[in-house]
Amino acid sequence: MDNNSCGCNVCSTREDLPWEGRGTDLPIAGCRFTLYPMTDRYVDIILGSLEKTDTSYVWSETDALSTVYRGKLPYVADAVKALFVNAYRSGVHMALEGQFSKGCPGDIAGDSLLEKDGEAPNAKSAEGIHFPVKCKLALYPMGVGNYIDDIAKVWYMAQDRGLEPTTIHYATRISGDVHDVFDYLRDVCALMDESAVSHYILHFTVNCNSPTKE
Amino acid sequence: MDNNSCGCNVCSTREDLPWEGRGTDLPIAGCRFTLYPMTDRYVDIILGSLEKTDTSYVWSETDALSTVYRGKLPYVADAVKALFVNAYRSGVHMALEGQFSKGCPGDIAGDSLLEKDGEAPNAKSAEGIHFPVKCKLALYPMGVGNYIDDIAKVWYMAQDRGLEPTTIHYATRISGDVHDVFDYLRDVCALMDESAVSHYILHFTVNCNSPTKE
Repeated sequence: MDNNSCGCNVCSTREDLPWEGRGTDLPIAGCRFTLYPMTDRYVDIILGSLEKTDTSYVWSETDALSTVYRGKLPYVADAVKALFVNAYRSGVHMALEGQFSKGCPGDIAGDSLLEKDGEAPNAKSAEGIHFPVKCKLALYPMGVGNYIDDIAKVWYMAQDRGLEPTTIHYATRISGDVHDVFDYLRDVCALMDESAVSHYILHFTVNCNSPTKE
Repeated sequence: MDNNSCGCNVCSTREDLPWEGRGTDLPIAGCRFTLYPMTDRYVDIILGSLEKTDTSYVWSETDALSTVYRGKLPYVADAVKALFVNAYRSGVHMALEGQFSKGCPGDIAGDSLLEKDGEAPNAKSAEGIHFPVKCKLALYPMGVGNYIDDIAKVWYMAQDRGLEPTTIHYATRISGDVHDVFDYLRDVCALMDESAVSHYILHFTVNCNSPTKE
């Protein structure tokens, strides 16, 4: 076993693991997330946003804690961004917490729409809506000793894009237009896809209209 | 450089890193978290809970996205649990998302109250309040190839405690009384402290009164 990877062939032979892990050789990414509109009308806002968001390019499952979208990375990222953009209400404090991930050795193949192709379905409808957001993020390249190099790389990527990264305990802060921030998160994942990291997770929180003055 | 560790002596000599990283040899853990009461009264609930919670055993900092507590692990865990318990309102859907962490090579020593000792300050006041919660969690042991073994270990630990773990994409689900769930999260961190993992992160979401039927 290569100590720096957890391929499906390994996990499938590990009967002591408590899950049906066989990794995945498919180009399938995912995002598990929760939308938190801080208002009595949170159910209406979430359902209203879902109605406006085209989720036909992702496999989706919702439980009492969160929703997961799975599919090709650009379509997963498109659907998550659109859900946040479509839920926006002027003056309503709202956060979206999530984790993009790919290559989990406990992952199960399938559950996906990997034949989809072309422009992301929400790109046009979302592009006209702009508002400033704050974001914190933490990248976890798994199974490798030099993970700090990848974390440094994406920090500089945020700086190059004018997202003004700052380091806080356990995370990086950035800020900018909602599209620039979500597109950056997607591109961090794309960068990991191109790297030697076989399994990564990118945790993030995006919020708007926070009453906290800084 | 040992490929599986990022000690402070290493980071302090890495001038290409965008943060003042020197790791930490101190027994300092931390938790960055956000409380999301899904109601128009979210500010009152958060401030009201803070008033009831003794945070004198942790170093604390709040920004527009989250709050971080740092100190000895039992006191950090005690403060976070108490904040959630004290914010509880019958019928109000509420979530707390957070990340416990220790040993980050980009961490800065200090900012702590490591001389504190004895019983956790909120243990007595919180112990009388009970309600069921749902939780999802994801453990990230960093810099090691065999991280999947630690993840499996804590899964079985949840099973042994009757927290009914199930595997979902990118996370583990558990459920139980609020104390059992938060104490389990603390003990997962304690287990990592005793292991060979020098840097770990435990992301989690705890919620109550979710309107989503499962």
